[in-house]
Amino acid sequence: MTRNRRPGPSTRVRVHEHVDDRVRHREDRLATEEPLEIRLASPGIAARRVAVTMRTPGHDFELATGFLHAEGVLAGADDLHTVAYCTDHTLTPEQQYNVVTVELARAPRREPAVRYDGPTAGSSACGVCGTESIDDVMALGHAASCATAWPGLRVSPAVVRVLPDRLRTQQRVFDSTGGLHAAGLFDADGEMLVVREDIGRHNAVDKVVGARLLGGDPPSAALLCVSGRIGFEIVQKAVAAGVGVLVAVGAPSSLAVDLAQRAGLCIVGFAGRARFVTYALPERIGV
Amino acid sequence: MTRNRRPGPSTRVRVHEHVDDRVRHREDRLATEEPLEIRLASPGIAARRVAVTMRTPGHDFELATGFLHAEGVLAGADDLHTVAYCTDHTLTPEQQYNVVTVELARAPRREPAVRYDGPTAGSSACGVCGTESIDDVMALGHAASCATAWPGLRVSPAVVRVLPDRLRTQQRVFDSTGGLHAAGLFDADGEMLVVREDIGRHNAVDKVVGARLLGGDPPSAALLCVSGRIGFEIVQKAVAAGVGVLVAVGAPSSLAVDLAQRAGLCIVGFAGRARFVTYALPERIGV
Repeated sequence: MTRNRRPGPSTRVRVHEHVDDRVRHREDRLATEEPLEIRLASPGIAARRVAVTMRTPGHDFELATGFLHAEGVLAGADDLHTVAYCTDHTLTPEQQYNVVTVELARAPRREPAVRYDGPTAGSSACGVCGTESIDDVMALGHAASCATAWPGLRVSPAVVRVLPDRLRTQQRVFDSTGGLHAAGLFDADGEMLVVREDIGRHNAVDKVVGARLLGGDPPSAALLCVSGRIGFEIVQKAVAAGVGVLVAVGAPSSLAVDLAQRAGLCIVGFAGRARFVTYALPERIGV
Repeated sequence: MTRNRRPGPSTRVRVHEHVDDRVRHREDRLATEEPLEIRLASPGIAARRVAVTMRTPGHDFELATGFLHAEGVLAGADDLHTVAYCTDHTLTPEQQYNVVTVELARAPRREPAVRYDGPTAGSSACGVCGTESIDDVMALGHAASCATAWPGLRVSPAVVRVLPDRLRTQQRVFDSTGGLHAAGLFDADGEMLVVREDIGRHNAVDKVVGARLLGGDPPSAALLCVSGRIGFEIVQKAVAAGVGVLVAVGAPSSLAVDLAQRAGLCIVGFAGRARFVTYALPERIGV
């Protein structure tokens, strides 16, 4: 496969397709996957690596901004100075488009967490459990605003039923590759605010939140719809964004529901035209 | 939701199900998601945290063993001294079942990588790109054995077509929750060797590899079938295990195909009864 200097969201490749007993040699398109390094700089502090994620290129500034918002590092667009691809001359052109530096206009509101730990000598005395994972998210302070941001929110079941279709019709790269997740923010009437795609479902959520922030809008929206399942990390990001109802085509996990109940987020799974299931805060769904 | 001291693979919860215009209050089952901390000890070196992953409880020793094998830390069962839940008395019972300590009988063959970096002051001069990610995997040395392990392997299209069904029939927790990925190792005739489920697709692969290792078997198998899509990390683990053909129900990514071509792994995507697509080493599929 040839590698462009600046990769796009999909990549051409030659494949063998077996249909019944015939084999056809044809061109196909794959969802592009490339690592993105997110660097953080702030006044008086040089840029440093805070995360590396495998993502689909495109909307990289939104991804970096949304990621740092979910981590509690920045609260809104006012905290941003610049977001840019790296111009470090020691990097190859391919590398430069895989490094985004977010420069804050002020000190980070919180130091970015080391979420997937590497060897850390000092940690051998502490264990992990779901309750603590939830405590960590609640400590970020987003949750308080999530629970109070939508006091009288009530979303019509009819709106819930059409959201997955509305998300799906916006999935341009999925149509050609079959390999991408999507996330979309919608208002309480189901009107689309922004939709983004990525090979990683958490990246798609970071992108929609980052898009709102970079557009000068608040990241909170009544509805967040995601194409896949709901794990803990997706709820964590929905809570950080201040979403009212999280709607998914797939199933939630136990810890996702625990966190949603604690943070005051309504969760809907298995959403489709005929049926959906409410796992937390069911009072937010009704006519 | 109540939290057991030792969580099982699924968790009961009360839900509201909307079907057409009716709402039913009933019990449902969710795939359990809990963090697992993997600790590594070796002669003369005390246990230290090397990774935390969100996983579905069950087969945790296999998960830890398979993970460390894929990381190049251990080469086989002979490298293992013990694998155990943590008995650190400072931990709560809930935490103890979320910490697995792998004690090696010898020094680690390679220091575990810090894969999802936290703040590292020394890294500001190095960028990331897909080519380097592939180089990193090739440097582990697994790839050489992957390419040479299956010199004359040729898998019948009929076997490829039935693998997803064979995997699916073993998915017991999925049947009750709809929320789990699966991975299975099969021989060249499509006979099942081992199948495991997890909320994380990479964890499911670690579990099947770990199951083979802890059973005293080599981790390499002709066929690895996974229920989802094929990203870079899944290929990385398949290469580490020495698999001949990786079969997936979903689509591969660009970087997954790049790595497979370089490492000598055959990749099949969109596998089903009527159709499948070969993305790398198509010569391994034929009658």
